[in-house]
Amino acid sequence: MPSVIALDAMGSDRAPKPEIEGAIQAARHYGVRVSLVGNEATIRAELSRYPAASGLPLEIIHASEVITMEDKAVQAVRAKRDSSMRVGLRLVREGRATGFVTAGNTGAAMATAKMVLGGIPGVDRPALAAVFPTAIRTVAILLDVGANVDCTPENLEQFAVMGEIYFRSMFGTRRPKVGLLSIGEEDTKGNELTREAFHLLKKLPLNFVGNVEGRDLYGGQVDVIVADGFVGNVALKTSEGVANLVRAILKESLKETITRQVGYLLSRSAFADFKKRLDHTEYGGAPLLGVKGVCFITHGSSNANAIKNAIRVAAEFAERKINSKIEKELAGVRVATMST
Amino acid sequence: MPSVIALDAMGSDRAPKPEIEGAIQAARHYGVRVSLVGNEATIRAELSRYPAASGLPLEIIHASEVITMEDKAVQAVRAKRDSSMRVGLRLVREGRATGFVTAGNTGAAMATAKMVLGGIPGVDRPALAAVFPTAIRTVAILLDVGANVDCTPENLEQFAVMGEIYFRSMFGTRRPKVGLLSIGEEDTKGNELTREAFHLLKKLPLNFVGNVEGRDLYGGQVDVIVADGFVGNVALKTSEGVANLVRAILKESLKETITRQVGYLLSRSAFADFKKRLDHTEYGGAPLLGVKGVCFITHGSSNANAIKNAIRVAAEFAERKINSKIEKELAGVRVATMST
Repeated sequence: MPSVIALDAMGSDRAPKPEIEGAIQAARHYGVRVSLVGNEATIRAELSRYPAASGLPLEIIHASEVITMEDKAVQAVRAKRDSSMRVGLRLVREGRATGFVTAGNTGAAMATAKMVLGGIPGVDRPALAAVFPTAIRTVAILLDVGANVDCTPENLEQFAVMGEIYFRSMFGTRRPKVGLLSIGEEDTKGNELTREAFHLLKKLPLNFVGNVEGRDLYGGQVDVIVADGFVGNVALKTSEGVANLVRAILKESLKETITRQVGYLLSRSAFADFKKRLDHTEYGGAPLLGVKGVCFITHGSSNANAIKNAIRVAAEFAERKINSKIEKELAGVRVATMST
Repeated sequence: MPSVIALDAMGSDRAPKPEIEGAIQAARHYGVRVSLVGNEATIRAELSRYPAASGLPLEIIHASEVITMEDKAVQAVRAKRDSSMRVGLRLVREGRATGFVTAGNTGAAMATAKMVLGGIPGVDRPALAAVFPTAIRTVAILLDVGANVDCTPENLEQFAVMGEIYFRSMFGTRRPKVGLLSIGEEDTKGNELTREAFHLLKKLPLNFVGNVEGRDLYGGQVDVIVADGFVGNVALKTSEGVANLVRAILKESLKETITRQVGYLLSRSAFADFKKRLDHTEYGGAPLLGVKGVCFITHGSSNANAIKNAIRVAAEFAERKINSKIEKELAGVRVATMST
């Protein structure tokens, strides 16, 4: 089956504009078929503003309800049975789409995906994997960043296997380096959870480099960083906080004198480069690993470029059959564990 | 008793140079008496390079051993009974110094302080509090950043009380805002630990603003952020990682064209300002709250300025009788808890 991505057209903060534009770009540049899921009239009105889109492989699938950012995840999943998320994920379950992309409420998207798609055999808990840039122009992933807050060592073991497969399949690294997020490099460092997980990860047939610290996240020396969802989420959001702080302070300083302002004007393109390298919209969103189907979640603030990239990456995820690799390798891990 | 600070003269990466210089500056500018603890010959040789120091209130206390950054904390504490850390902390216990400052091995410093000084009644576990700048030119503190990795809700409750007193006493904020580091603002968000701690913190007679997220750390909207030592340490080190990434990328970008280089030269003073605002050496190190005595730990990379500021802040900590306030307020919390 060629790639068909079901796109939640109602998800982002400025929906449906970025979604429609991103879908058009993805269809045009990558030849991906996109099913735009949401209120048909709204989508049709927005689509009509792009006459050139008429020949592209886009279709509209009506869904009468929308889950908002303010909705509580569990309640929204229960109450809104015809939400664009639920309808979109149903397309994946029924084999009418190869993947789903949403820029909507993350908690609701995860809960809906778990319910509609179900888990891959061998995965006790799915994990959300964030992709980010490093200082040496590579990318790295951190998982889980919020799908599960109270994890067992076995959960972390499964996150490691899933993250490694994802990284290897998507970024072409033959033996990605896998690290465990902790508070010191020695294996005795960490909390109860990470100390136990350390021993499980050491036995896995992958390139486990041991504990890594927060300051190693962005160094590029490790590709896949494993953490429980609470810690991963704190690390991710703290990073956003620091980036905002740095931007705010630098902006203030650069405005203070005329000389500095002139200097800034001359070096402005460097700041544009800088912004682009830190720009999450280039990375195509975070996959929810461990569910029986392809589900990508992107920022609520996504623009068309972010949506386009998420559609591209979701299509690749499906084509590379990452889910069946996860199922197969986790079965291997179980057999190995039982035989020891 | 006037302030006498026992300074570990052998702690930092470039010891004893930054220590001696920092001690001289603190003695000169703040009139603090400093006991330089470490190898007498080494200290005397370094001191002799500063003839103007001879009239200052500095004395040398010999200690024959040094705990290195490579030493394992627990082993070092047991094996090196005449380390500069242990001798310095003993001066505090015996009332011969009002506080102790070290730029040495953090783990060993915490372990030695707990052993030599003992805990304040009412504190089950001490906490290390990091001080950092915010976007609105205030400071905030995060605790614990690594003293205790597996915490109970009651530990976090005590951290909140101690952190609030520290902040109020040192930065003159009448009602500091206290937040709990979590992964969403609603009280139902978080892991088991934070959800239980939330309810305890809500009952405390302090300005509890609820859950805060990683991205709020540097915003300046909250003054005291409470976390278990594992999460706090990850947040702190992740921040360092992001700051390094941002610096690396910006430096690279600014070198790429001649125009950008000229621009950088003109705006260079802005970058110097920027660096100064993010500079940890201005903040005087992290107090270990909850031990019966004053103990400050600064970065291993500390320069003279960092040491000078740590001596100043440690002296203020003692003068403001923060430890007896902590003891008194925690007794109040216990009474309140028992009566409900």
